[in-house]
Amino acid sequence: MTNRQVTLAERPIGMITPATTNLIETEIPVCKDGEALIKVAMLSIDPTIRTWMNDAPGYLPPIEIGAVIRSSGTGVVIESKTPRYNVGDIVFGSTNWQEYVIADEENKFQVIPSGMGIDLATTMNVLGVTGLTAYFGLLEVGEFKKGDVVVVSGAAGATGSVVGQIAKARGASKVVGIAGGPEKCAEVVEKYGFDVCLDYREPGLRKKLHEVCPKGIDLFFDNVGGIILDDALANIAMHGRFVICGAISQYNAMEKPQGLLNHTMLIMRRGTMKGFIILDFLPRSGEAQLALAGMVLDGSLSHQEHLVQGLENAPDALNLLFSGGNHGKTLVVVDETIKLA
Amino acid sequence: MTNRQVTLAERPIGMITPATTNLIETEIPVCKDGEALIKVAMLSIDPTIRTWMNDAPGYLPPIEIGAVIRSSGTGVVIESKTPRYNVGDIVFGSTNWQEYVIADEENKFQVIPSGMGIDLATTMNVLGVTGLTAYFGLLEVGEFKKGDVVVVSGAAGATGSVVGQIAKARGASKVVGIAGGPEKCAEVVEKYGFDVCLDYREPGLRKKLHEVCPKGIDLFFDNVGGIILDDALANIAMHGRFVICGAISQYNAMEKPQGLLNHTMLIMRRGTMKGFIILDFLPRSGEAQLALAGMVLDGSLSHQEHLVQGLENAPDALNLLFSGGNHGKTLVVVDETIKLA
Repeated sequence: MTNRQVTLAERPIGMITPATTNLIETEIPVCKDGEALIKVAMLSIDPTIRTWMNDAPGYLPPIEIGAVIRSSGTGVVIESKTPRYNVGDIVFGSTNWQEYVIADEENKFQVIPSGMGIDLATTMNVLGVTGLTAYFGLLEVGEFKKGDVVVVSGAAGATGSVVGQIAKARGASKVVGIAGGPEKCAEVVEKYGFDVCLDYREPGLRKKLHEVCPKGIDLFFDNVGGIILDDALANIAMHGRFVICGAISQYNAMEKPQGLLNHTMLIMRRGTMKGFIILDFLPRSGEAQLALAGMVLDGSLSHQEHLVQGLENAPDALNLLFSGGNHGKTLVVVDETIKLA
Repeated sequence: MTNRQVTLAERPIGMITPATTNLIETEIPVCKDGEALIKVAMLSIDPTIRTWMNDAPGYLPPIEIGAVIRSSGTGVVIESKTPRYNVGDIVFGSTNWQEYVIADEENKFQVIPSGMGIDLATTMNVLGVTGLTAYFGLLEVGEFKKGDVVVVSGAAGATGSVVGQIAKARGASKVVGIAGGPEKCAEVVEKYGFDVCLDYREPGLRKKLHEVCPKGIDLFFDNVGGIILDDALANIAMHGRFVICGAISQYNAMEKPQGLLNHTMLIMRRGTMKGFIILDFLPRSGEAQLALAGMVLDGSLSHQEHLVQGLENAPDALNLLFSGGNHGKTLVVVDETIKLA
């Protein structure tokens, strides 16, 4: 029995390639006093993983060459020498891209309550970092107010789709999505209930935003960055709030991206642009998870998970986020037998 | 007796030229019931005037072709048919670039209290829009906190120099200026008491900012924009606050400026970038003017005014702001005989 791991072989330029990572086999770590051994169930595939592969300043240090790719994920406790975890507990935390991980004082895991009637994939999507990002980004960082005109980039994505649905449920006067291609735009309106969705691949986004938000954008939730953010800034409403939680359009950039030109509209419209990292809100996860679980259980929150089978396919799964080939939250299934009761 | 006026002849591209404006003579307006006639003393020359000459969206509509150039200024009431003003009152308001202006219900003026022992030029600088911008921008928009590392662009300028001095007086742990050329940098340190001043005309600003602010910039006060703002963003501290009140480097831009690239640091550092227009704070002028007058009178606030003689030289005075040829607050003296008692 071995522990398969995906490690960083070299720093990628642009999309990751087969040369970026190595699939290696090591021994399963030994569980010492005060520790627990976790068998990994699923990995959460998030755009931020791509940023950790660069040798650039970030909110966490870059992944070192030769190290296991950093990632959150879930698993089951198969051995425990600490009262913190019981064998059989389903847990969430920094699993990284591997089959087995040790929980200790440095690397703590959160036990996921069972019996809620919500499966593991949904939990990792809506009740995980994705849903929390949507919840706190919109309500806390964005200071959402009833009546706001809300625009969401990456609207077909795991985070964006939840942002729009919370905004709609809490009384936004209009919820506009931005997504890539007619299929995703249709999904944003039909499945996620946005009022309208604009296709950024078509020309004239800036003008179209003006047409659908003639009084401007009160709250923009952005995880795309680049030209889409710039077009939105051109349409900021008086006292508008721009929440930026990511810039997926930039993470793979091969050449210097076109910079923001319309940030001076923040002056004209007395606007605010605020960045955040969901890590800061994790101590308050409970309140968001309660609210979101309620919406899942009463059927008012549509969501979907894009499952990729096999640890060895994690690098391809990460690329899907940048090619737009995924639908909903991308998860890698490492062990499909592990389920949340 | 005529009313000389400077009007907008054509929309400038880049620096304004003799073709941009016309100097015309019209009749002195007749003072009707409910109105007062004001003889203009001095004009406040502000970068924002240049933005109003463009046909672009802003916080006020563009100046129309043929209209008198919009500007604030001071003057003396020489005729009054309203109880609001007494003949002899020194007033502040929208004088525009001309020798005489009517105060009415549409265009109200603020009477400047006399007897404070502060002259008119100083009043227009420190107690005028310039000082108010510094005061509210730093303390309210920027939410200045004792111990902050504060960086100010345009630090030798009228607004920037006041920002740094207020920050220093209120307990900033370090106040760093950015200015153009060794002469201005020396002034920023020696005259205005900043801890250090960096010359943006020399290469390596980004790296130098890191050297003088190794823990990052808590509060950046920017009225320059462009590459300087981008270099500062690269050095934003955790939870840093960036206040943008202008982008003078962009107002004259002949070609598409290089856009912001480092705004994604707002995400990494959970930062905020906030724009503001001082107009929003004018109802609260009193509190700022009291605090600033106190600092002028006790000698703790250094300031200087750059006086340009003659209405006809107002266009050249405006260009000084962009060439950096001014030292301190630029004012055009229209009638040097009008003084504040």
